[in-house]
Amino acid sequence: MTQRLATPSPVRRRRLKPAAGSTPSVDLRRVHSNPDFWYPVAWSREIGRGKTIGTRYAGQPIALVRPEDGSLFALEDRCAHRQVPLSRGKVQGEAVQCCYHGWAYGRSGRCIDVPYLGKGKLPNGVRTYPCREQAGLVFIFPGDPAKAGTTPLPDLSRSVDPAYKTRRFGRPVGCHYSFMHENLMDMNHQFMHMKQMGKMKPRFLGGETEPGLVEARYSFARVDGKQPWGETLIFGQRRDASEKYANRDVMTIRTEYPYQTLRIAPVSGGDPVMDLWIVYTPQDADQLTCRVFGLLSVKRPKVPGVLDLAWPLLIGFTERIFREDREIVELEQQAWRELGGDHNQEVFPVINALRAALAECGIAPETAADAKPAA
Amino acid sequence: MTQRLATPSPVRRRRLKPAAGSTPSVDLRRVHSNPDFWYPVAWSREIGRGKTIGTRYAGQPIALVRPEDGSLFALEDRCAHRQVPLSRGKVQGEAVQCCYHGWAYGRSGRCIDVPYLGKGKLPNGVRTYPCREQAGLVFIFPGDPAKAGTTPLPDLSRSVDPAYKTRRFGRPVGCHYSFMHENLMDMNHQFMHMKQMGKMKPRFLGGETEPGLVEARYSFARVDGKQPWGETLIFGQRRDASEKYANRDVMTIRTEYPYQTLRIAPVSGGDPVMDLWIVYTPQDADQLTCRVFGLLSVKRPKVPGVLDLAWPLLIGFTERIFREDREIVELEQQAWRELGGDHNQEVFPVINALRAALAECGIAPETAADAKPAA
Amino acid sequence: MTQRLATPSPVRRRRLKPAAGSTPSVDLRRVHSNPDFWYPVAWSREIGRGKTIGTRYAGQPIALVRPEDGSLFALEDRCAHRQVPLSRGKVQGEAVQCCYHGWAYGRSGRCIDVPYLGKGKLPNGVRTYPCREQAGLVFIFPGDPAKAGTTPLPDLSRSVDPAYKTRRFGRPVGCHYSFMHENLMDMNHQFMHMKQMGKMKPRFLGGETEPGLVEARYSFARVDGKQPWGETLIFGQRRDASEKYANRDVMTIRTEYPYQTLRIAPVSGGDPVMDLWIVYTPQDADQLTCRVFGLLSVKRPKVPGVLDLAWPLLIGFTERIFREDREIVELEQQAWRELGGDHNQEVFPVINALRAALAECGIAPETAADAKPAA
Repeated sequence: MTQRLATPSPVRRRRLKPAAGSTPSVDLRRVHSNPDFWYPVAWSREIGRGKTIGTRYAGQPIALVRPEDGSLFALEDRCAHRQVPLSRGKVQGEAVQCCYHGWAYGRSGRCIDVPYLGKGKLPNGVRTYPCREQAGLVFIFPGDPAKAGTTPLPDLSRSVDPAYKTRRFGRPVGCHYSFMHENLMDMNHQFMHMKQMGKMKPRFLGGETEPGLVEARYSFARVDGKQPWGETLIFGQRRDASEKYANRDVMTIRTEYPYQTLRIAPVSGGDPVMDLWIVYTPQDADQLTCRVFGLLSVKRPKVPGVLDLAWPLLIGFTERIFREDREIVELEQQAWRELGGDHNQEVFPVINALRAALAECGIAPETAADAKPAA
Repeated sequence: MTQRLATPSPVRRRRLKPAAGSTPSVDLRRVHSNPDFWYPVAWSREIGRGKTIGTRYAGQPIALVRPEDGSLFALEDRCAHRQVPLSRGKVQGEAVQCCYHGWAYGRSGRCIDVPYLGKGKLPNGVRTYPCREQAGLVFIFPGDPAKAGTTPLPDLSRSVDPAYKTRRFGRPVGCHYSFMHENLMDMNHQFMHMKQMGKMKPRFLGGETEPGLVEARYSFARVDGKQPWGETLIFGQRRDASEKYANRDVMTIRTEYPYQTLRIAPVSGGDPVMDLWIVYTPQDADQLTCRVFGLLSVKRPKVPGVLDLAWPLLIGFTERIFREDREIVELEQQAWRELGGDHNQEVFPVINALRAALAECGIAPETAADAKPAA
Repeated sequence: MTQRLATPSPVRRRRLKPAAGSTPSVDLRRVHSNPDFWYPVAWSREIGRGKTIGTRYAGQPIALVRPEDGSLFALEDRCAHRQVPLSRGKVQGEAVQCCYHGWAYGRSGRCIDVPYLGKGKLPNGVRTYPCREQAGLVFIFPGDPAKAGTTPLPDLSRSVDPAYKTRRFGRPVGCHYSFMHENLMDMNHQFMHMKQMGKMKPRFLGGETEPGLVEARYSFARVDGKQPWGETLIFGQRRDASEKYANRDVMTIRTEYPYQTLRIAPVSGGDPVMDLWIVYTPQDADQLTCRVFGLLSVKRPKVPGVLDLAWPLLIGFTERIFREDREIVELEQQAWRELGGDHNQEVFPVINALRAALAECGIAPETAADAKPAA
């Protein structure tokens, strides 16, 4: 059941009621991400053949193992013996051998060898995680393994479409993943990027919400300042600075739990000029840090090679934007820590809808379980 | 009612009883500073016109805003929207605009604009602090604003007197403010500065205590070593090293809650040769760190320019002294943390009187409220 | 009563039962070291005449004081006055004077002078520790002082035997001392040092356990790789790589609470070619860090000077081994912190015997006192 989100003016007349689930009664920053989804935990290029690396999901250490032959697999990154990381070990055939006393584990997580012990009474093994590779990302399924088979991986086809050039980026950010969703969804924060982008005026065109999904659409008008190179690259041409051209492109931002996308496409229809897919994998057990995995796809212009030439400029531009965003969400997280909880005072209905969706899709803290709104 | 503090010898005969309030039953390092006073939180020169900076009092973040025209004002340094620091924002006319989504706040703390929202339903604003500038310091009143008008600012007239040259100094120190008061008041710690000052023998001449005030007077005799340059500069002439000249100057140290002063003046009367005003503004919520604001005024000698020429030497000298003091009070604080409380075993009545005064003037921890001695 | 530990194969047939004390029901990493033993806290060369240094045992700060004349003594490293470290002070004759206000303490810990107070009413002093020097190590007795006289110091005679050359080494390691004991005792961890040592196959020859003592004996066969120089130096000659020579030397590792030794000696009998004495003094109050003090004695070969010439090679070799060991035990400790307790799944009977011995000799946490197996 889709619910329309109107522009701010009408909304002030017909506000979303708390009863409608707009304000979660639980502290959103204590809501854990739902593990019954596929989460990226590494880039494929990080793990060569015959190697193993250590990564994390929400405080759980995970060893990714790539045998010389055969596909990647994922184990709990703690030897059953003395709990040291298996990712420090050696890949031998289809197994990984702990670096300390040489205990070996196969793809199934079973301990298959203790060098100084007979084969008769091998100890217990370690937990495994369903693991898949797609579009240069390594996904694991941290929840109920029985659900992995029926839970689809996200559609990342645009990142491998030759009509687009894709940048893979990401780094750790010191905040709860919900701050990242809110940051991207609320385009009024364009204000913060004024130095990078010039003075832009976002116009909220409307949005939708349904279980597990929130969408917001915007147009932009340049109010002041020159169009930055980064933007020129994405749009393929310089735009007139006056408001009358404002509605030629529409930016659509969508949280489709647990992923997020941002697409810029002509109002007239047709393929997007830019398509961003992004996710924020929780790192520590409290989920107050996350690692970003982003795929930014830009449509290649008609003149070949222009985009490749200008790519370093685009990288620099997006890095500066990302740095500003990271700084502000980490300041939000710091305020949360100091205040001991969420004091957000939201006035934008689309963000309240997003907050409700994140609270409903996630795992509320045990102590607040009865306070969790029904999904 | 003033109570005389005798020199150590007679005191051993007529010791101050705990009943007399000399030993507070509450852990002094848990006593919070009384917010119903004016505390400096910045130097005036730190905030240019049209700028805002962030500062702190006892864990409360404070944005100081100086419009292009008009006087400074102080707001809670957290946007009402998402709690990020307003001091990261922009000063626009008489308002400050949050860097994230552009919410604007005026001198009254009211939110006066949300760029993407109609003017009808503006959200709540932020807390304000009474704010005054004096002698190059920015003071705020963190307590009950109704008391700000009737609570006097400290007298800092000497720091702007042309007969004196004044050094403004200060930095963060990792300890409860009470350690700083005790450090300065107990001149027997001269022992620690032997390398800087030579061997000096302090003589306690007596002291007074009354509610909110403790005063101690000392004379000094050089026992050994050369007079350091820093001291020469302050006293304007080299002193004879023998004891007979010891009583020509008197050092008076006074805690007049929450400030502290140290004056050196001739026994014969007349203006002090040195006058230090100093205060220790608590930084974190537990008040186990403070920021020092000090004004050290030295009387200009008859020959003009000598003091200015020698000023760098005096700066170096006082910095070395201050560094030794900072190191030792931070070691005291560290011992307090390790021991989980105050184990001070004080034998000097003036320090016991000071401790009682700090406990009485401050805010005792809630759990120890009934253990707090009546003021 | 000595109990024989068989080789792994028979053990799988006759496993040590938990009832036999092999698996302590208390979390071993919460067991504190027994203070009623002599623990090294410094190297003699660290404290010159007329100097004092600060050191630690299990969170207790200790000042070691060496007067110009007379033997070392050990005091609680906190002045009775304001709890700052006495080790920052000055040694004056047979006393140490606090750096802050000059309070002086003698060998007995009594306060013998407060410079600004009459001699009549001196305040309380500080705790003392029995203190001894032997073989370049400073030992203190942190437990009941009445037991110090009857508790023997360890036998370190080999470290001063001219037939041996001894290396003194050590540094802080971020783990509970029990991890260190287990690391050395379980020679199957040879696997981890493969890069340094080549491929060696340890063979467990058997072991003994009795109250406060666990011993394990091994032989080694080189399976692959060249003999490293470090090993050549210790054994005085290159060994044949084939298994048939494996049993010419026996390695004996012994935990004799709280110390540990590792000796390599010919099967045929005679003096060891290598003799390591090592102990892990707890540093912080939770005893989750320790400082290693090790004496590695290598028998001098018949050709004089060879060992001295090659000494730097041996230092480099042992440092690399030690670095690998330190890294892995710190990873074990980190896993313990993340998991909130010990999840060790031990299959090697000698290590289970060692764990039981360490739990029985140590001080179990109060809350688990009734869960502690009877000694």
